[in-house]
Amino acid sequence: MSVLWTARALCLGAVALSLVAELLVRLLRRLRPAGTLNEVLFFPSEVVCVQHLFSSLPACPCICPLRHGPETSLSRLLRHVMSASSSLDLCIFAFSNANLCRAVLAVHAKGVTVRVLTDKDYAAITGSQIGVLRKAGICARCDSSSVHMHHKFALVDGRLLLTGSLNWTLTGVQSNMENVLVTEEPDLVRPFVEEFHRLWE
Amino acid sequence: MSVLWTARALCLGAVALSLVAELLVRLLRRLRPAGTLNEVLFFPSEVVCVQHLFSSLPACPCICPLRHGPETSLSRLLRHVMSASSSLDLCIFAFSNANLCRAVLAVHAKGVTVRVLTDKDYAAITGSQIGVLRKAGICARCDSSSVHMHHKFALVDGRLLLTGSLNWTLTGVQSNMENVLVTEEPDLVRPFVEEFHRLWE
Repeated sequence: MSVLWTARALCLGAVALSLVAELLVRLLRRLRPAGTLNEVLFFPSEVVCVQHLFSSLPACPCICPLRHGPETSLSRLLRHVMSASSSLDLCIFAFSNANLCRAVLAVHAKGVTVRVLTDKDYAAITGSQIGVLRKAGICARCDSSSVHMHHKFALVDGRLLLTGSLNWTLTGVQSNMENVLVTEEPDLVRPFVEEFHRLWE
Repeated sequence: MSVLWTARALCLGAVALSLVAELLVRLLRRLRPAGTLNEVLFFPSEVVCVQHLFSSLPACPCICPLRHGPETSLSRLLRHVMSASSSLDLCIFAFSNANLCRAVLAVHAKGVTVRVLTDKDYAAITGSQIGVLRKAGICARCDSSSVHMHHKFALVDGRLLLTGSLNWTLTGVQSNMENVLVTEEPDLVRPFVEEFHRLWE
């Protein structure tokens, strides 16, 4: 009799443990998606070769005089932009950086839906890449108001937010002291998704 | 005998439950501090009276012609800045907004250590509040390089980060489309704390 009841007690304990463990897993999933990315990139970024990020032929090494190989803030930013697999929404005050333009073109070329919102005054300046994006068939809209669209954020697949002080310019990337905050935190991403939709319509 | 073993089984279950519950609470505390704040403020902010934020006399209502009472992006930002109880570290490219200056002076007046890093070119323009802060005894440093210190972030008590596209100017607050991301997420706050220390030294 006592063996039977010991077995029953052990079973009851095991059931209780498994139930609470499941509850724990569900709670953790709700509070924080697995592997939530939180990262901060600071600029200026060291000037190195980023050719390998765009090349599908690793067997043909780049022969440019820049340093090859090291990961920098710019290469991290380019990788995040190019990780888009379904949508890329950009809201960028000044966009003149050729490497970031190349990344957006690469994303567009693989069939990702790209939408660009920018400031009308800065879209017209020399060196702006907005014309290049439009020529490639990317939809780029300018605000029509007299005030500045001063945001500098990107939404990758509606789940990854890149935002901060950095305009997508050569000065921003190579000279200024700047930051880009990278996060998948839903409480931070959601408002930016909603704001992009509001500004786009 | 069976009653005794039923009681033992129940006790075992209760102990198992309480142990796993404690484990759950400890895990949650480690993963996310209680009440971690994540908030996004968008601008332009509606122009309303913010006098009540600075006044310790609620019995004397302000008689200015602006709307009174509604919470706006600016009032939220002012509240976050004024919540500082031990330190306030500012890294702001352009600082000319009188209300934000008033908030920083109020924080300084209650004994909080305030440090300000700003861009040397913009510190000298008409309307800059850097001189006002210095006259009040606040330590404000300018970068000595030829490039721009383009950050726009604040660290409240080293635990709350306010960062985004917003310069602390009247145009930024009342006209432009801007964002300020507010977070206590340690993975996002820590890099900004380290960057501030690096730039300050």
